[in-house]
Amino acid sequence: MSNLLEESVLAKEYLKRVGDMAELRMREHLPLDTNEPKRLHEAMRYSMFAGGKRLRPALAYATFEAFHGKGDSIWLAASALEMLHTFSLIHDDLPCMDDDDFRRGMPTAHKKFGEATAVLSGDALCIHAFGLLAKTGSAQVVETIAHSLGTSGMIGGQMIDIESEGKPVSLETVDYIHYHKTAALIEASLVVGAILAGASEEQIQPIRDYGHAIGLAFQVVDDILDIEQTTEQLGKDAGSDLEKGKATYPSVIGLDASKKQAFELYESSIRALDRTTADTKVLRSIAAFIVTRVN
Amino acid sequence: MSNLLEESVLAKEYLKRVGDMAELRMREHLPLDTNEPKRLHEAMRYSMFAGGKRLRPALAYATFEAFHGKGDSIWLAASALEMLHTFSLIHDDLPCMDDDDFRRGMPTAHKKFGEATAVLSGDALCIHAFGLLAKTGSAQVVETIAHSLGTSGMIGGQMIDIESEGKPVSLETVDYIHYHKTAALIEASLVVGAILAGASEEQIQPIRDYGHAIGLAFQVVDDILDIEQTTEQLGKDAGSDLEKGKATYPSVIGLDASKKQAFELYESSIRALDRTTADTKVLRSIAAFIVTRVN
Repeated sequence: MSNLLEESVLAKEYLKRVGDMAELRMREHLPLDTNEPKRLHEAMRYSMFAGGKRLRPALAYATFEAFHGKGDSIWLAASALEMLHTFSLIHDDLPCMDDDDFRRGMPTAHKKFGEATAVLSGDALCIHAFGLLAKTGSAQVVETIAHSLGTSGMIGGQMIDIESEGKPVSLETVDYIHYHKTAALIEASLVVGAILAGASEEQIQPIRDYGHAIGLAFQVVDDILDIEQTTEQLGKDAGSDLEKGKATYPSVIGLDASKKQAFELYESSIRALDRTTADTKVLRSIAAFIVTRVN
Repeated sequence: MSNLLEESVLAKEYLKRVGDMAELRMREHLPLDTNEPKRLHEAMRYSMFAGGKRLRPALAYATFEAFHGKGDSIWLAASALEMLHTFSLIHDDLPCMDDDDFRRGMPTAHKKFGEATAVLSGDALCIHAFGLLAKTGSAQVVETIAHSLGTSGMIGGQMIDIESEGKPVSLETVDYIHYHKTAALIEASLVVGAILAGASEEQIQPIRDYGHAIGLAFQVVDDILDIEQTTEQLGKDAGSDLEKGKATYPSVIGLDASKKQAFELYESSIRALDRTTADTKVLRSIAAFIVTRVN
């Protein structure tokens, strides 16, 4: 574990540096809240700049760099990925979904702006993100992201997550939810970085496998943190998964087995990177960061 | 008026014929409700096949034909346009928005499937539509639609619509709402048909102006029908705009002036078509249909 903590130092620096760069671009790419509809633009910016690790932009950029990508279009994609992630958080927090009042220590969008504005700000971030992805000029990028978000991806995962609440579920179902709800977009973020750097399908496959593994690991660790951390550390209600009867790794296989699973996913992600000729130093460190993060 | 009714006969036949063709493609392009998440796919299909004029697919196809377009990608776009329209209806009907129980004579999505599934089915249709638009291979098509849907288009119109409820509004505000909420996507449907047929920007401009005019006319007529038709004719509650204090043309300038306005928009749309060399017979007829429709 101490080795992994050392490994993750580079990732932390990278996430901070690239996260700051991504935030600058996001501010440019979002409509101004001095323009109509002001309240809607204000709500979009509120949720976008309420903190967050900027993991998806960093993953896209790290992959772009790993394949020696050139040009500025990666920032369009990086901004779009964070918008799509934020869209999913806003809608997931709604009263009819997970009904959460706090996110990253701040009131959720519907608490701050009301439900109608929250729904519309999520819709708008999703649509705006697709506009930015299109501006990269690559229809393949748009298609990759749409596939990872739709009923075969994130939205599909959220649907099964909600349907499974309070019911006994199998490990297979938890895997389905975690892969679709979380890993699919993480995987797609990497693939988009690779596409924009001009990587071939053959070069992309190991990156996809890496993304699958770290995406699942990210969610398993999230499940563990929900149990082990305090509300203050999480910035949202601790133990809320348990309270809501959410399908999680610890609830199905226990806490120790979940930790073991997270570490195995880490190892699997590194094995995937061993199959690529890309410069994967940062991606390796990000994998270590994901399994050792304390939030 | 009797001339316009004659003019609109061709449009009615065209909407029926192209609408049927579009429905076949939509059935192909939507995920099967025998696949997981079944209930989500069922909800998407329920709202997509609950009737509707299929106006946006027909407008895209008519413009594609007007510019002698070739190939099959227009059907991807046509299906996507109807999905995007349906997404907007599902979210507009939600309890936190317009809180409507019926649409086209059937229970609205949230009444039939619950609110969480309704929100997610709208999200999924939006995302799926962008995937289909990307499959046309044209990033310009994706960008055009994203622009017409976001805060500078449909979602922006919906936001101001909701903010204006129950307040005295100016004609300028009603124009803003109607243009953004309704006309922007109608205009973009035409533009996408033209792009996919290979039309130049110079050729597209008159089509854009036509779309602006018929898009506004469509919504003005909708306002008039809400007052003059019965609940049975409408398939939703008659007089509901008035009851909700919605910003409409009749509420701001009166019923007679609204009818005059609809006719002037019709004339303006025809003048726009006079400036193009495309074969606009069907588009002319659709304009006549829009101002004479009884639902």
